[in-house]
Amino acid sequence: MKSQRIVLASRPAGEATALNFRLETVDTPPLAEGQVLVRNHWLSLDPYMRMRMNDMKSYAPPVAVGAVMVGGTAGEVVESRHPDFRAGDTVVAQGGWQEMSVLDAAQKGVLRKVDTSRVPLPAYLGAVGMPGVTAWVGLVHFIEPKAGETIVVDAASGAVGGIVGQLAKARGCRAVGLAGGPDKCAYVKEELGFDACIDYKAHRDFASLAAALDAAAPGGVDGLFENVGGLILDVVLSRMNAFGRITLCGMISGYDGQPMPITNPRLLLTQRLRLQGFIVSEHMHLWPQALKELGEGVAGGRLKYRETVAQGLASAPGAFLGLLKGRNFGKQLVKLT
Amino acid sequence: MKSQRIVLASRPAGEATALNFRLETVDTPPLAEGQVLVRNHWLSLDPYMRMRMNDMKSYAPPVAVGAVMVGGTAGEVVESRHPDFRAGDTVVAQGGWQEMSVLDAAQKGVLRKVDTSRVPLPAYLGAVGMPGVTAWVGLVHFIEPKAGETIVVDAASGAVGGIVGQLAKARGCRAVGLAGGPDKCAYVKEELGFDACIDYKAHRDFASLAAALDAAAPGGVDGLFENVGGLILDVVLSRMNAFGRITLCGMISGYDGQPMPITNPRLLLTQRLRLQGFIVSEHMHLWPQALKELGEGVAGGRLKYRETVAQGLASAPGAFLGLLKGRNFGKQLVKLT
Repeated sequence: MKSQRIVLASRPAGEATALNFRLETVDTPPLAEGQVLVRNHWLSLDPYMRMRMNDMKSYAPPVAVGAVMVGGTAGEVVESRHPDFRAGDTVVAQGGWQEMSVLDAAQKGVLRKVDTSRVPLPAYLGAVGMPGVTAWVGLVHFIEPKAGETIVVDAASGAVGGIVGQLAKARGCRAVGLAGGPDKCAYVKEELGFDACIDYKAHRDFASLAAALDAAAPGGVDGLFENVGGLILDVVLSRMNAFGRITLCGMISGYDGQPMPITNPRLLLTQRLRLQGFIVSEHMHLWPQALKELGEGVAGGRLKYRETVAQGLASAPGAFLGLLKGRNFGKQLVKLT
Repeated sequence: MKSQRIVLASRPAGEATALNFRLETVDTPPLAEGQVLVRNHWLSLDPYMRMRMNDMKSYAPPVAVGAVMVGGTAGEVVESRHPDFRAGDTVVAQGGWQEMSVLDAAQKGVLRKVDTSRVPLPAYLGAVGMPGVTAWVGLVHFIEPKAGETIVVDAASGAVGGIVGQLAKARGCRAVGLAGGPDKCAYVKEELGFDACIDYKAHRDFASLAAALDAAAPGGVDGLFENVGGLILDVVLSRMNAFGRITLCGMISGYDGQPMPITNPRLLLTQRLRLQGFIVSEHMHLWPQALKELGEGVAGGRLKYRETVAQGLASAPGAFLGLLKGRNFGKQLVKLT
């Protein structure tokens, strides 16, 4: 059986471009014992993939040049040589940027069955998947929000940020988002129910962004869920209350290799702040609790999210590059079937 | 009764100078009910005092211009109108830069009796006092060292840093210090028993300091007790192992207002580090446990420290300015009697 896949053609020098990717057509290999063949219906595009394109020290090895780009997928089992799976099962998987994936079902975290009776299949790549659990772990486990506190999250209309604010609201906090442009900000406030949202594109320097934050968070900031870094981190840091908590989930503003210092780390000391970097896959014991709250929230209609869908595997590089520039709205998916 | 005191004459513009201090002779006021008059034998000089000279947002209010400089003291009760104290008691107190102090004994943390039978009085301002407890809280409570890990501390010959390394060694860790000059480094290694000590004055740029750290900590760094900031923090950060812990206790390199960014905070994310700023006076519940280990260590001769003693109150400003430049060796004290 022929199918398509996208490999890393070359490493980016600075900004990633479409030339760093290559579309290939390959034969699906026969299954070995314990393997499962999955037809991927949906591919998830996420900012972390940009870091995996670089050959640098990080929490996960880089994607090799010539190898299939990594990525979460949702789809259907076509053929199985593992007793836990059979043809027709709906699954989420680490399927990569390809139409068909051969997966070792016994390998941890690679493949799991999901129930699509109350949660739509692509939501398992967003609100009820890795991005949603990332929001939950960073907020609930690391920031430890208390009712009445103010929580700030950037990339607030995105797959992670949108969930962070809604989970914070459910815990009695004031939720303040940052997003790019008036449409995203309106969505964050009106649809997601944040108390305030700052259009960072309208505030390009420290003084302007700080004034906007002072208006949105008049009592200062107790928790920061950081996806972006750079100027936003500097500004929010300057408004942190004593004993505030910062969780570093992403630093998308520096993924192309730009310098991105924390200008005034003295504040970490004088405000007695805690800052924690984390990777959601290293906190597997928290996933069941997180997925329970997230799944019930989506099934019950309380937890809202938006998806941007690109059509066909060939559109994945362009959609991914747009994601890095904030051109998507909500969770970026690729529909493969 | 006449006595001398030193007040903040003016706020520093950049680097502090002797002109920011003024020596005054005053009359000791009569005691009110609940007050105690103490003759201070020893004044402690500590880096945090530099921050209190600035009018800026921090964990404690600045010293008012014209007010007595804050500081820990050790001395003897001369007169008491509080039932818990009587003339002749040896005490440590928040007595300030002055020969005689009138203290409200009921105010928390202001005055306590100490036993000098096994621990010398000035040690209660160092290894068995605020600096020692700072070392204990930062290392034991925040860094949470495990046997076999590598712990780095800067200002390693100082009152805090010297204790950090010895407590780390007692917990089965590799202790690596940074100190200024070959004499201090020899002391840190040979007298305090650190595994290695780097003379930061011999390594003024990133590459040179990083190479020295690689030699001293070939397995990378698991815990950093940070007193200095700036280049040292940047270099150690680049050598942190996954899940490392950094405790920010001081940033003496920036106390004059110099910019002191963290150049590459992306490492906090990719190495999943935890960074925590803290102030020892906000962790009073840990003091008894810390003082027990520290007091027993000093009484038993296991815990070592060194003191630099300036003679007479008038010498305090010069000694303090020297401390900020690292001219002291070990704990800086002023002998007032």
